[in-house]
Amino acid sequence: MNFAEIINKKKNKKELTSQEIFWVVNSFVNNTLKDYQMAAFNMAIWFNGMSSSEIANFTQAMINSGITYNLDGVKGLKADKHSTGGIGDKTSLIFSPLVAKFGVKVAKLSGRGLGQTGGTIDKLESCPGWTGEISEEKFKEILNTVGISIMSQSSDIVPADKKLYALRDVTGTVDSIPLIASSIMSKKLVIPADSIILDVKMGSGAFMKDLKSAIALSKAMIAIGKEHKRNVSVMITNMDQPLGRAIGNAIEVKEAWDTLNGKGPKDLIELCITAAGLTLVQNKVFKDLKTAKIELTKVLNDNSAAHLLRDFIGAQNGDFSVILDYEKNFSTKHVIEIKAKKEGYVAFSSADELGYLSMHLGAGRATKEESIDFAAGIYLNKTTNEFVKKGETVMTLYTNRDSIEEFQQKAQDLILINDNAHNEKLILKLLTVDDI
Amino acid sequence: MNFAEIINKKKNKKELTSQEIFWVVNSFVNNTLKDYQMAAFNMAIWFNGMSSSEIANFTQAMINSGITYNLDGVKGLKADKHSTGGIGDKTSLIFSPLVAKFGVKVAKLSGRGLGQTGGTIDKLESCPGWTGEISEEKFKEILNTVGISIMSQSSDIVPADKKLYALRDVTGTVDSIPLIASSIMSKKLVIPADSIILDVKMGSGAFMKDLKSAIALSKAMIAIGKEHKRNVSVMITNMDQPLGRAIGNAIEVKEAWDTLNGKGPKDLIELCITAAGLTLVQNKVFKDLKTAKIELTKVLNDNSAAHLLRDFIGAQNGDFSVILDYEKNFSTKHVIEIKAKKEGYVAFSSADELGYLSMHLGAGRATKEESIDFAAGIYLNKTTNEFVKKGETVMTLYTNRDSIEEFQQKAQDLILINDNAHNEKLILKLLTVDDI
Repeated sequence: MNFAEIINKKKNKKELTSQEIFWVVNSFVNNTLKDYQMAAFNMAIWFNGMSSSEIANFTQAMINSGITYNLDGVKGLKADKHSTGGIGDKTSLIFSPLVAKFGVKVAKLSGRGLGQTGGTIDKLESCPGWTGEISEEKFKEILNTVGISIMSQSSDIVPADKKLYALRDVTGTVDSIPLIASSIMSKKLVIPADSIILDVKMGSGAFMKDLKSAIALSKAMIAIGKEHKRNVSVMITNMDQPLGRAIGNAIEVKEAWDTLNGKGPKDLIELCITAAGLTLVQNKVFKDLKTAKIELTKVLNDNSAAHLLRDFIGAQNGDFSVILDYEKNFSTKHVIEIKAKKEGYVAFSSADELGYLSMHLGAGRATKEESIDFAAGIYLNKTTNEFVKKGETVMTLYTNRDSIEEFQQKAQDLILINDNAHNEKLILKLLTVDDI
Repeated sequence: MNFAEIINKKKNKKELTSQEIFWVVNSFVNNTLKDYQMAAFNMAIWFNGMSSSEIANFTQAMINSGITYNLDGVKGLKADKHSTGGIGDKTSLIFSPLVAKFGVKVAKLSGRGLGQTGGTIDKLESCPGWTGEISEEKFKEILNTVGISIMSQSSDIVPADKKLYALRDVTGTVDSIPLIASSIMSKKLVIPADSIILDVKMGSGAFMKDLKSAIALSKAMIAIGKEHKRNVSVMITNMDQPLGRAIGNAIEVKEAWDTLNGKGPKDLIELCITAAGLTLVQNKVFKDLKTAKIELTKVLNDNSAAHLLRDFIGAQNGDFSVILDYEKNFSTKHVIEIKAKKEGYVAFSSADELGYLSMHLGAGRATKEESIDFAAGIYLNKTTNEFVKKGETVMTLYTNRDSIEEFQQKAQDLILINDNAHNEKLILKLLTVDDI
């Protein structure tokens, strides 16, 4: 194989063979293809895209760079879920019990948070003792007993993606749909779940700025799934506003628990029953989404799936009781109430900036090495489009850090109070394998 | 300045400011912009091109990376010439005396040969003592006395181009018209000549495979010249066949001398009087090309410019007498005649391969470190479209190396004998500043 020939084919829109794609990825991983060559190759992909078969091969070559898991011996259907990252997104913690309640197991890898985005592993660790560092055997055992298990994504999984992303990040090729699609899907395909539901966030702070590119990314990921014999559905959702009322770690587990007990915020409920409903339709538990959502709403109202969250956390050594007595266990030095300066309908100028504020309060990390304060975070007493009177509390900040005035100023800057509510749809589009 | 912003502008076809272009080139030269970033930038240029103003700035930034020359104190008009590289191309050695004969000085930098292509510096060094390593003062002094001087292109000239070309070569971005144009022109603009004539070679072995891209490259170079207040003309010429009958070093100086004495091959004469004619029109010595060519043909026939080649070589310490007694001074161990296997009209399957054969005979170098055998080379007893009878000599190989059979086989493989002559035009198109 010869890089000059391969790059010329890519430049001139000729389809690369599987041999050529595997050679590129393998050579990049073992450093015989240099970073400057891969950077040129990525930029050619940015311009010319990749065919479905090229993307499928590229994804497989990435997967081959690391370890994979099997689910041999795990009975029944298995589902997986992924979100491209939202603020206050604790969907997995509600989705998993809802799906498991109907007999479809949730087998999932999750990551940690960085910068403005939180991570499911961090949130779960707010229950003392909980660990995602479990063996494949333990993972399968919990799936068979509880029906839900979440493992930490280790550095041995798709190392090619980590190396490639670091290069894309400094060479202007992050925003390439085939490269995003193969990056996300390579990490999903490491676990052989029967169905995958993807939540593709769209909005000013997301990778996908508009519906057209969000649809293109969704279709690319569904196609990769199809090539790998996995049933993938996608919901494209709005991330211009935060999801639910809680942003942080323990506070998000608490909100998930409340939601499973029939006391959740409307937007979060809508997202969770849609994701779970799509998954149950994919797995033929229900014939259509409408029926699935009716049944899932009943489950939220009769609390019958809530115990599965507690059981799953317990099965991975977590002490869930801290969440049941939340105020006592997660008190903070400072509780700062941010008041409305006038009356009107609440909105936030940037969901991402709320994420960064939460990080500064101690709930997130600016660099990978930092530790997390599980009690820190934000509670939105009024969330998007709710009416607030002048002087009422819009949000409450919880922190053990002392830069109170700075936090107050930052929070106040993020609050918009409008004369009218701006009702934007949360779920913008649903796509299944029938749409490609 | 920020690379992410600059690469995004380039990806999205927004024009870069001069500050941004200079920042990119300077950062690349001092290694703060990494090779992988420059590789991505080059690929974005490959796809989106550059505006005239971007190319002009890019060229200037490249020039600024090294030393430049002045021609202060050199009286009269100064011309420069460049060829993108042909086999048997000794045009500069004929062009320069022809132009100087009419009072326009030729001030030129030249390079050495590598691979299949020869270099003017190597050819001139076949006259013992000749050197291109002269001071700026000496260069100007010879221009004032003889009217022709040629300096060796040192590594201090446009070092950015050398570094950039090495990167382009391994990242699939050699064939980018703005990058080729700025590379060629940056090295030309180091000397402030009033006019520049460029010979852009076109054909299977050249950078430019077709007339459309050759015209695009030509226009880009004329535009760079215009932005830098230099009068640039271009002739696009066919390089599918070798130029003249001689390929090598001393043998090419000999052919140049013969041509200046009225005994040159037709194709070489046509190219030289066209190049010289365009230059004399650019410098307003003649009102049009037709008149110029008539006067130049007279000069070739009355030998009145020949002495200028001898004088110029002498002024740079070369002993020209070796050329006057060529057979004695440049004899080789082997003289191999290659005979026609049938009768018909001669052509060569690849001019480039003739260049490589010449290299293997000892006349060129495969790597920069190799030395050259000035006496080695090829003489085409029959050149393109000449009729040959079976058993007549088509070409003669001169070498001091002993792989005779290999040379014979290779030479025989390159000879095509056709039933009819295929008259292809040598000069395909002329372009001046009025054409852009």
